[in-house]
Amino acid sequence: MKSLTAALAILLLGFCAELQAAELRGTGDLGIVIERASGSLQVIDVTQRRALGRVQGLGDLSHASAVFSPDQRYAFVFGRDGGLTKVDLLTQSIVKRVVQAGNSIGGAISDDGRLVAVSNYEPGGVRVFDSDTLAPVADIPASYGAKGALSKTVGLVDAPGRRFVFTLYDAGEIWIADFSRGGDPVITKFEDVGALPYDALITGDGRHYIAGLFGEDGLARLDLWAAAPKVERLLDGYGRGEEKLPVYKMPHLEGWALAGKRFMLPAVGRHEILVVDADTFQEVGRVPVHGQPIFAVARPDGRQVWVNFAHPLNDTVQVIDVPSQKIVHEFKPGPTVLHLEFTPRGHEVWISVRDSDKVEVYDTRTFEKLAELPMAKPSGIFFAARAQRIGL
Amino acid sequence: MKSLTAALAILLLGFCAELQAAELRGTGDLGIVIERASGSLQVIDVTQRRALGRVQGLGDLSHASAVFSPDQRYAFVFGRDGGLTKVDLLTQSIVKRVVQAGNSIGGAISDDGRLVAVSNYEPGGVRVFDSDTLAPVADIPASYGAKGALSKTVGLVDAPGRRFVFTLYDAGEIWIADFSRGGDPVITKFEDVGALPYDALITGDGRHYIAGLFGEDGLARLDLWAAAPKVERLLDGYGRGEEKLPVYKMPHLEGWALAGKRFMLPAVGRHEILVVDADTFQEVGRVPVHGQPIFAVARPDGRQVWVNFAHPLNDTVQVIDVPSQKIVHEFKPGPTVLHLEFTPRGHEVWISVRDSDKVEVYDTRTFEKLAELPMAKPSGIFFAARAQRIGL
Repeated sequence: MKSLTAALAILLLGFCAELQAAELRGTGDLGIVIERASGSLQVIDVTQRRALGRVQGLGDLSHASAVFSPDQRYAFVFGRDGGLTKVDLLTQSIVKRVVQAGNSIGGAISDDGRLVAVSNYEPGGVRVFDSDTLAPVADIPASYGAKGALSKTVGLVDAPGRRFVFTLYDAGEIWIADFSRGGDPVITKFEDVGALPYDALITGDGRHYIAGLFGEDGLARLDLWAAAPKVERLLDGYGRGEEKLPVYKMPHLEGWALAGKRFMLPAVGRHEILVVDADTFQEVGRVPVHGQPIFAVARPDGRQVWVNFAHPLNDTVQVIDVPSQKIVHEFKPGPTVLHLEFTPRGHEVWISVRDSDKVEVYDTRTFEKLAELPMAKPSGIFFAARAQRIGL
Repeated sequence: MKSLTAALAILLLGFCAELQAAELRGTGDLGIVIERASGSLQVIDVTQRRALGRVQGLGDLSHASAVFSPDQRYAFVFGRDGGLTKVDLLTQSIVKRVVQAGNSIGGAISDDGRLVAVSNYEPGGVRVFDSDTLAPVADIPASYGAKGALSKTVGLVDAPGRRFVFTLYDAGEIWIADFSRGGDPVITKFEDVGALPYDALITGDGRHYIAGLFGEDGLARLDLWAAAPKVERLLDGYGRGEEKLPVYKMPHLEGWALAGKRFMLPAVGRHEILVVDADTFQEVGRVPVHGQPIFAVARPDGRQVWVNFAHPLNDTVQVIDVPSQKIVHEFKPGPTVLHLEFTPRGHEVWISVRDSDKVEVYDTRTFEKLAELPMAKPSGIFFAARAQRIGL
């Protein structure tokens, strides 16, 4: 009897320890930092500006990105190797991992949080999974042309109404997959959108889907609010007739900043930010910057846009004041600034500096450095508050 | 020895039970529903569409509202009786409650989540508290005129840069309290903004602060981005020269909907929604509606605006399609529709129907009713995702 009680006590102790290890806490201010070189990530507490723990075994995380469940407890991490990993931010552990394709790039989560979609290069297409179990829900091969070849897919985003929108790189097409009636999607295809659409974004209101073209000097836009949506071109020939610079790295279209009534758009290959009217989609100005811009991210209030740059000028960040379109601050966080992420109401910004193995936190008004967190070759920074935004 | 082990086991069992009662879970999709008549609230799981538990003892909750900590674990509930109550959504319990004034209305949380401010009628002014402990940080008496009388304060909101903005009802002034340098605020005052400013809002980008005037036919606007902000009038005389209707209830200004590039604004006393250009602040149209509008809330994508109405037409909700400015749906959830709250990406809306003692959940595209939750005389519905927005 005595040994039974003792055994019970030991059992309970262990159980309690396990429960306590996963501390009861809110998840609204959590996030992750991708550690590309080691296939790991660190879970961060944005308020406390500290790392909570490292999660390993996520495979090839070059060009990795992430989306979050509506309860902001789980991150879905999209790796380069086709890996889709569901990470529990509270326990800093992998809940489930599937290698769902041979080569993939990015993903999205449906507005109701039930479906996670992944954009694949090999085999070309989009695969959709149940966000709870990662069980397959739908397979959408991106077949095109008479012979049904499979295209690489890029620019996959969520749109309101349980829809995903993505682009076929090889085919030059944009597809909408509508899951509003269940797991068997209705597909709408838009052909001949332009040559080699290499990336895309959806505006924060879920209205406009815009694809950048690698093979042409312009972009393709789809107005999802139109009764009969059709693809229109914008910024046709925005670089034409000028001396072309070598392109070190294509800018991320997801880095488009909507600031007030204007988009601030990194120009491909040029040391410029294009200013585009958000109503007419006409170019209304250019802001000269330090190098080839990679990300141009608006502070959530839209008053400032922060810009980082391609190699070899990637040690620098510039801050543009939107109303005056002037650069009001420039600083060098260190070698290889890869990504920046604002707190949801914009009072701080987190910046990953890969080659100094740290993430730095800045006050966005005083520009004062508030903290440094050691990280192993950090790249993307993703805050769980993205769960509450369309298209992120 | 045996009894010691047994006692230990019992102790541990109790401890474990307590830990388990507060289940490890995310907080991104939590929310609260105010039960006005009983001074209680229910914590809700928005994803599962269910109530997690009731919290009692919050005092007089008529006209109550709430803000949330950045980690989305805590709600700060502002009652009518001066009560400020910090509620733990995870354990559904009161962490701390202070009765900080005799009569108050609404509050706000600073962009860094550290300060909670309350707008008081009696004594007139704003009091600011540490969000962690609810310890007093600052007291801002709203004294005005030669004799230093205290004005009721209304329309208190957060603005970027650790600022609060509020309006002095009796004085006709707007004040900015800037806490960026610490707990001792720098106050900026704008006098003569118009007669009896009764409520106010700040736009979602934190740029424009707009106060409604009870004593005049128009509104007052302050552009916080201006180098030298000054008060300008808008919609002057929008009801002048027409037959005046009795005003059953003043509309909530926080219900202003920014849909695309237009505000949809409930007209005071008229069966109309005013359409106002978001750049010029000029009226560009009116949408006739069922009754005197109270809230006109934009679905987060801005495609639709949902409207409820004052007594005696408060059993009805109308849905306006923004591009066409047409009413595309009308239905009667039941007697006394008091409030509506959208999920952050807009796929569902929660509606409180006070006199049928329930909250109803609708699909915003099919308009299908998805769930009903029993609640005791529900009024305001507040989702924790508000933590991640400016001015909510």
